[in-house]
Amino acid sequence: MQMNSSIASKIYIGAGLVTWSSFRDRVTSYRQATEIFEALRQVAKIPGIRGVDVSRNYMPENIKEFKSTLQELNLEVASVGAGLSSGPQMVHGSFSANDAEIRKIAIGRVKESMDIAKELGSDKVIVWFGQDGYDYHFETDYKTRWNYLVEGIRECAQYRDDVRLCIEYKAREPKIHQFVNSASTALVLIHDVNEKNVGVLFDVGHALLADETLAESAVMLAQHNKLWHVHLNDNYQHADSDLMPGTVHTMAFLELFFWLKRLDYEGYVTFDTVAHSHDPNEVTAESVRFTQALIASADRINNDEIDHIFSTDNPIKGLSIARAALFNL
Amino acid sequence: MQMNSSIASKIYIGAGLVTWSSFRDRVTSYRQATEIFEALRQVAKIPGIRGVDVSRNYMPENIKEFKSTLQELNLEVASVGAGLSSGPQMVHGSFSANDAEIRKIAIGRVKESMDIAKELGSDKVIVWFGQDGYDYHFETDYKTRWNYLVEGIRECAQYRDDVRLCIEYKAREPKIHQFVNSASTALVLIHDVNEKNVGVLFDVGHALLADETLAESAVMLAQHNKLWHVHLNDNYQHADSDLMPGTVHTMAFLELFFWLKRLDYEGYVTFDTVAHSHDPNEVTAESVRFTQALIASADRINNDEIDHIFSTDNPIKGLSIARAALFNL
Amino acid sequence: MQMNSSIASKIYIGAGLVTWSSFRDRVTSYRQATEIFEALRQVAKIPGIRGVDVSRNYMPENIKEFKSTLQELNLEVASVGAGLSSGPQMVHGSFSANDAEIRKIAIGRVKESMDIAKELGSDKVIVWFGQDGYDYHFETDYKTRWNYLVEGIRECAQYRDDVRLCIEYKAREPKIHQFVNSASTALVLIHDVNEKNVGVLFDVGHALLADETLAESAVMLAQHNKLWHVHLNDNYQHADSDLMPGTVHTMAFLELFFWLKRLDYEGYVTFDTVAHSHDPNEVTAESVRFTQALIASADRINNDEIDHIFSTDNPIKGLSIARAALFNL
Amino acid sequence: MQMNSSIASKIYIGAGLVTWSSFRDRVTSYRQATEIFEALRQVAKIPGIRGVDVSRNYMPENIKEFKSTLQELNLEVASVGAGLSSGPQMVHGSFSANDAEIRKIAIGRVKESMDIAKELGSDKVIVWFGQDGYDYHFETDYKTRWNYLVEGIRECAQYRDDVRLCIEYKAREPKIHQFVNSASTALVLIHDVNEKNVGVLFDVGHALLADETLAESAVMLAQHNKLWHVHLNDNYQHADSDLMPGTVHTMAFLELFFWLKRLDYEGYVTFDTVAHSHDPNEVTAESVRFTQALIASADRINNDEIDHIFSTDNPIKGLSIARAALFNL
Repeated sequence: MQMNSSIASKIYIGAGLVTWSSFRDRVTSYRQATEIFEALRQVAKIPGIRGVDVSRNYMPENIKEFKSTLQELNLEVASVGAGLSSGPQMVHGSFSANDAEIRKIAIGRVKESMDIAKELGSDKVIVWFGQDGYDYHFETDYKTRWNYLVEGIRECAQYRDDVRLCIEYKAREPKIHQFVNSASTALVLIHDVNEKNVGVLFDVGHALLADETLAESAVMLAQHNKLWHVHLNDNYQHADSDLMPGTVHTMAFLELFFWLKRLDYEGYVTFDTVAHSHDPNEVTAESVRFTQALIASADRINNDEIDHIFSTDNPIKGLSIARAALFNL
Repeated sequence: MQMNSSIASKIYIGAGLVTWSSFRDRVTSYRQATEIFEALRQVAKIPGIRGVDVSRNYMPENIKEFKSTLQELNLEVASVGAGLSSGPQMVHGSFSANDAEIRKIAIGRVKESMDIAKELGSDKVIVWFGQDGYDYHFETDYKTRWNYLVEGIRECAQYRDDVRLCIEYKAREPKIHQFVNSASTALVLIHDVNEKNVGVLFDVGHALLADETLAESAVMLAQHNKLWHVHLNDNYQHADSDLMPGTVHTMAFLELFFWLKRLDYEGYVTFDTVAHSHDPNEVTAESVRFTQALIASADRINNDEIDHIFSTDNPIKGLSIARAALFNL
Repeated sequence: MQMNSSIASKIYIGAGLVTWSSFRDRVTSYRQATEIFEALRQVAKIPGIRGVDVSRNYMPENIKEFKSTLQELNLEVASVGAGLSSGPQMVHGSFSANDAEIRKIAIGRVKESMDIAKELGSDKVIVWFGQDGYDYHFETDYKTRWNYLVEGIRECAQYRDDVRLCIEYKAREPKIHQFVNSASTALVLIHDVNEKNVGVLFDVGHALLADETLAESAVMLAQHNKLWHVHLNDNYQHADSDLMPGTVHTMAFLELFFWLKRLDYEGYVTFDTVAHSHDPNEVTAESVRFTQALIASADRINNDEIDHIFSTDNPIKGLSIARAALFNL
Repeated sequence: MQMNSSIASKIYIGAGLVTWSSFRDRVTSYRQATEIFEALRQVAKIPGIRGVDVSRNYMPENIKEFKSTLQELNLEVASVGAGLSSGPQMVHGSFSANDAEIRKIAIGRVKESMDIAKELGSDKVIVWFGQDGYDYHFETDYKTRWNYLVEGIRECAQYRDDVRLCIEYKAREPKIHQFVNSASTALVLIHDVNEKNVGVLFDVGHALLADETLAESAVMLAQHNKLWHVHLNDNYQHADSDLMPGTVHTMAFLELFFWLKRLDYEGYVTFDTVAHSHDPNEVTAESVRFTQALIASADRINNDEIDHIFSTDNPIKGLSIARAALFNL
């Protein structure tokens, strides 16, 4: 297997604008949203950032002004999040809601988001089903609601084939159990939908929630040509805490970056992090530095050596190489 | 071992007023708070409810009016929650905050709550350290902050010995890692504080979060004379979802109620449940019915038979008895 | 939706012969295997058992004698387990082993098992990849080994199309991370294999390990026409403890049996339980009684009422019906 | 706070002889035990190893010969494991068994181990209650059995006060639920026993199983003067996989070593690792290198800087320092 000498040239680091938005939980209101254009100006000053993920929930109404500011600041739009799950009307689901009116609203919102993404120069819309699921046993008809999901996504995919829908799977939160809960379930959904422009946003924090090994899921998605976008953040596998990437599962991240390189992944890795009581600039800047340190470590790993280890079932030697790369020995 | 023929006479079922308060999460605002006196009137109509847990975060300012309404409605106050963790000033902790001013505010609030509890005819104040903990590695000085906790609780305990402080342990949420995270850690804290009027509020949902067996923790606390109050709710052990009690871990609840009987527990079991998109009355009424069904099942279990099973290591027979009691065969 | 008045007529309860085999773990040797024909005679006496799951790892060499004894005892063979993962040669995997010789042995063993199943009157072979996975980061080439899995299963499926291969997914144990780790991953594998006679054995204990809701996974598999066999046992979601079914997650089992009825599932539910220090007969007999109690409870639930609840997002009412059915009120 | 410039001088790295013993699980027999004296000779050749943990389950009968060989090879004995939980007679518990005869055997075995430890030049006996717990609800009398534990340990502690009993807590495996399941529960047990020579063996893999933060538990134990011995290994928090330390939770290990330094811990960190299909020498040698890399990284962290971070609630900066230390930037 041939590899480019550095993966850094193909992986683009992006900031998640949501880090600058308001944050609260059940108990506490932590921060008010930074004014959106001010947030953009702050992002633009952070070294290493090439583009941003934007969300319909934290975006100016005037798209043209938004676009021109992004251009002035030399920031690309990596993707547009449809922002489906917010608002009390979605509390019983969006694409899978029993209420046909709600499903129609959700589908409409994704179609609009596809137009907006195109206008902003991106071909990716993020679709996350945060309320599509259930809390209790005996609450829901799994069969009917899965079919609603499939039909709704198919309708959106057929709306325009020059925009790619990136399904963001997540096991839980806010709905306790979400239908599209793992990388594999996303692939099953995509197979059922059966349209070319449906793939996956791989949020590594969500992969951790689903008890996945990051590199394994990335490979599984890439093998099915569906690894289209990556969100970086970290957590302790109970809740989606959106911590800075690599601060908890450093070794899993190193393996992930090694495989992104091995898979020739070309595209964004964007931070989906929370700055509840911290400065969003510091959180993002430190996330950049962690990501760059992990990429540099991954670059120190010789792919041919690893090939040999893989084919000879020798994890002790594999870890020895990873250790030297990580600790920069 | 002798047992009373029914535990129902010693276990008082209480409603948590919080079920009527506002509810939101990171993504969605679900409900506005019901006006507090209206909430009381609704509670009073639910069959089986004897008293309420009240919280400083959802309470009228006029305590006398509150008290007289409670009396008119024939509702006892089971406990008063100090409501420590709310508000942005507590985001880095309350009793364990590095900032001495914040610690002082937290201590003051608990002392006030002790006075209010007494005024409302209760001798129990609930102390929950929702923000006392940490999110990241390398964030906190575990040693210093534990000592702050110990000192603060000791000061409150010494303020008046006719009110009992009930420590509500919780492993996580909102702070990702909380210091007082399990029944055993609560006992260690209480031992370090070394004052008689400090015990435990056993929130069974928090016990599930901490991966505890409900009955085992209840026994452990009772053996150390610290099982002072009980909160009922259920979850799937990832997040503190505050579902109706027994709807997920039915068998664990049955064993808990059997042991509350065996331990001669006399006091409240109060619902700490969430009615995000549901009617608080329906949630509470169904919680009462689940609790009564579990108590009735526990009453069908013959304690002498169980004694024999326990002493002969025969869980298959133990489950056989539990099955007959649960399914009412 | 029309439903038969009782599901009991379509669900056949089976015993797992493995409950009579030897059992040990890392620390302790608990029991020696019961002589296999003696085990069969014991199974035949347990009320409610119609057939057995047999495993290549605990089976007489003389298949004809085995078959005739089964017939004398009036026991069907529900399925034949290929017994892939045992023995030190499989320690680095079976179907996904890097060593082509090992893969050949594994494939041969499954083909043989298909012939044996047919001879014993069953059309189902269980394929479980207990050692196909990895322990460490940087241990394995996820891509290559997944392809080995796909190719091997395809070769077996093409060997004879009158036997159905039932993939038994499992997240972990003995290999810490197994490739085919969830219901959805099994569906992805089956899609990649693309042969009609490959489906799923739904082991509910493995579903619990993968943090799945039992009913939801059963529906997902049935919707894709792959719910071909069911293993019953229970655990606490950390380890595959193979406890008696329903003794931990009673409500999840009730919902599962309700859905098996709603899905018109016709076939076996077989116990895959462990009797480490207990009597296999008692474990199996009590498992039958738990299963029958759950089925009887599921029969008490009116499907039309549930349809209404499902379409109106009313879980409180759903739980109310489930409570009445469970506690037999 | 003053700190020595390197912690390496106070932390002694030990090998666990068990890495050379036989290994099997429920499914597979992986390796036969290396002859014990051969194992010692191999250990002695591994750079960086100063001593060994020995277990009663894998030890020569001739203690004098054992001792003289250890001396020849210049290996200290860090501790002696009592090896309580093995053998079918302990299947229903050891110190907490309902059968008084079994409790007597268990107590006798620990007393013998205390004499053996002393003879081998160590003052530490490891007591692990692997079968003291329960599998099912309604299986056990939590109260009575806890009291048996307390009484048994007290009797052993009083047997000779020149040997320290190190309680090795563990949440599960082999018994599904063990009584002494966390650092805090160990402290509660020790408080109930109330003898000076009872403390804790901190097995970091067990801490991970109990969902503890390694540094926090080490601090908690040290604050109560009970951090007496450390076992190093890693896992994914489901099962006690005994992987090489730091290969999964690298950052948690870095924080632990930083705190061992800050706490002035002086003593052994011994590997309790498994080499199922690997070479025990390679596993141990790589474990040494991982440990040394972590210690070197911890040495790069300036304690005064961290003090400032701790007192100012600035985890972003804390992680920045940890990142530089870890990646050796």
